[in-house]
Amino acid sequence: MQDNNIREKCRELATRLYELDGEVYESVGSSLGRTFTGDREGTIRNLSALMYTKPDGHLLRSEMALISNMARTIKDKEEKSRLMKKYDEIFQEILTLPETFVATDIMDKERVALNHMIKHREKISENDHLVICISRTQGSAGNDIGFGLADKLRINYYDVEIFDQVLRRLEAEKGAVNDAEYFADFNKYEKKHKFDPKGWFREFNRYHGLPKQDAVFFNMSDLICDLASKEDCIIMGRCADAILKNNHIPHISLFITAPFAIRVQHVMDVRKMNMKQAVRFLKKMDSQHRRYYNFYGGAQWGKPDNYDLCINSASYGINETENLILKLLDDQIH
Amino acid sequence: MQDNNIREKCRELATRLYELDGEVYESVGSSLGRTFTGDREGTIRNLSALMYTKPDGHLLRSEMALISNMARTIKDKEEKSRLMKKYDEIFQEILTLPETFVATDIMDKERVALNHMIKHREKISENDHLVICISRTQGSAGNDIGFGLADKLRINYYDVEIFDQVLRRLEAEKGAVNDAEYFADFNKYEKKHKFDPKGWFREFNRYHGLPKQDAVFFNMSDLICDLASKEDCIIMGRCADAILKNNHIPHISLFITAPFAIRVQHVMDVRKMNMKQAVRFLKKMDSQHRRYYNFYGGAQWGKPDNYDLCINSASYGINETENLILKLLDDQIH
Repeated sequence: MQDNNIREKCRELATRLYELDGEVYESVGSSLGRTFTGDREGTIRNLSALMYTKPDGHLLRSEMALISNMARTIKDKEEKSRLMKKYDEIFQEILTLPETFVATDIMDKERVALNHMIKHREKISENDHLVICISRTQGSAGNDIGFGLADKLRINYYDVEIFDQVLRRLEAEKGAVNDAEYFADFNKYEKKHKFDPKGWFREFNRYHGLPKQDAVFFNMSDLICDLASKEDCIIMGRCADAILKNNHIPHISLFITAPFAIRVQHVMDVRKMNMKQAVRFLKKMDSQHRRYYNFYGGAQWGKPDNYDLCINSASYGINETENLILKLLDDQIH
Repeated sequence: MQDNNIREKCRELATRLYELDGEVYESVGSSLGRTFTGDREGTIRNLSALMYTKPDGHLLRSEMALISNMARTIKDKEEKSRLMKKYDEIFQEILTLPETFVATDIMDKERVALNHMIKHREKISENDHLVICISRTQGSAGNDIGFGLADKLRINYYDVEIFDQVLRRLEAEKGAVNDAEYFADFNKYEKKHKFDPKGWFREFNRYHGLPKQDAVFFNMSDLICDLASKEDCIIMGRCADAILKNNHIPHISLFITAPFAIRVQHVMDVRKMNMKQAVRFLKKMDSQHRRYYNFYGGAQWGKPDNYDLCINSASYGINETENLILKLLDDQIH
């Protein structure tokens, strides 16, 4: 569209909007008055300017919402439907203006390409499997939800114990390294107390000169990428989301948590702890998860912009949380 | 069940699980070997103990997942289905044991009662409307999503500009108070520079002795509760989730955000800012939102355990984020 044409179009739409507001006002007979209280010419000029220059679409959107909010209160059904139709027509035409308030999308194109919850997403390769990475806080029942989900989807479930067993077997000949123990003791900057030169040298060779916990992490990363390229599965924790993102392997990343007080109660029930023990246990586990994820994941654990979706399991319960996730996958399950 | 019966049942299930593992191993012919590598009697004793004492269900769950993960790799379809059926039977029977690993739910009962995304939730009163509270970070397109959703659902949309207009009209006779200006300047602890005794006394009377910004907040709270009890609607920001929760009014609480870099790009596009301006603008807005929510909402802004669901809009884009929310509401839309 030519610049002049756009200006004219804006003015025409502004005029129709102003007149619609008058009609809605008459039909509602509201004591609140019209949305546009200024004089006709000034209002139309302002509205056209909003459409044309759109400082950020914000004000125009609010004005439109006010009119439609009011129109929805019209009691006469025919009149309501007639005016809502007019409103829709104006709205649709505004959308066709260059760069209106919904024209500028927000999208991390790379992330969207990998996201299984996008409807009709194109497979990026033959090795494009449904991989659900679940991070969770201790006591949020995240593991129960992951396990239940795997069962409902009939796909494989991997948590830390399973990874350990698999790694231990795969690497039996090289001498197994156990991730769980390094995760539990994970403290990248804490010096070990004893220095054993012989042991150190043996480990140096075994892990190609990497610190042992880094070697464990890299073994784990390889395993996770390998799994995710071969099969549908659910992977609990292990920064799997960050690993797969870095390797450009399709996956969904979820974070499951619940309010601290609810997690405390859950841990007291499940682990037969008293409140003091449960609080101490949760604080310790949260801090371990945080350190591990922040270091290896390169992002802040539990911050919603790291994941596709964060779910508060206490707002749903285990079963409904599983159903919620299933609902979002319905395009992917055949 | 009697204690002795439970012990016996656990032992029986453990035996069946041990034997299933053997069968699966034979069918797979895996080089990884059986899940249970110990001797028969010891393994069965350990497994029964896991079922009976269930330290936290964790280990048993992982053992079961290992067996089913392996069974799913069986190539012969009939054999696979036969063994998976056996697995399911054992699994279902384990679930019937008192307090197995999925028996202890996590649930904030009050929150679940108010949550519209729960399938077949019972209405708690006649004034039970679909109210969607959306908190969002600036630049995450949260407002576009809220507005688009209101349009798709054909329900009312309220943002700060609309609240201001409504409040101003409703309170015209008392002298309007504008929430937007207090939100923008919100700093609970910053002293005002000038003291005007006459103005102070007038405001003291007008707001029943409350500080002006508190009075504005309480007006806003009343309005939000009133709206949410009368109609389906979408409410942007204003701590509406915290207000409705405190007043036990049904609603869904969503938080929409996106990674900082993506938000910067979005703000640059929409507001025609350069990168430096966009970064400064976002930091300022985030800090204002945080202070306002932390003070009036009584919780930490943007922490996933405050909301039912947090959505990363950059993982979906505007339209797919709207669709995602619609999908989760399908039980509520008629």
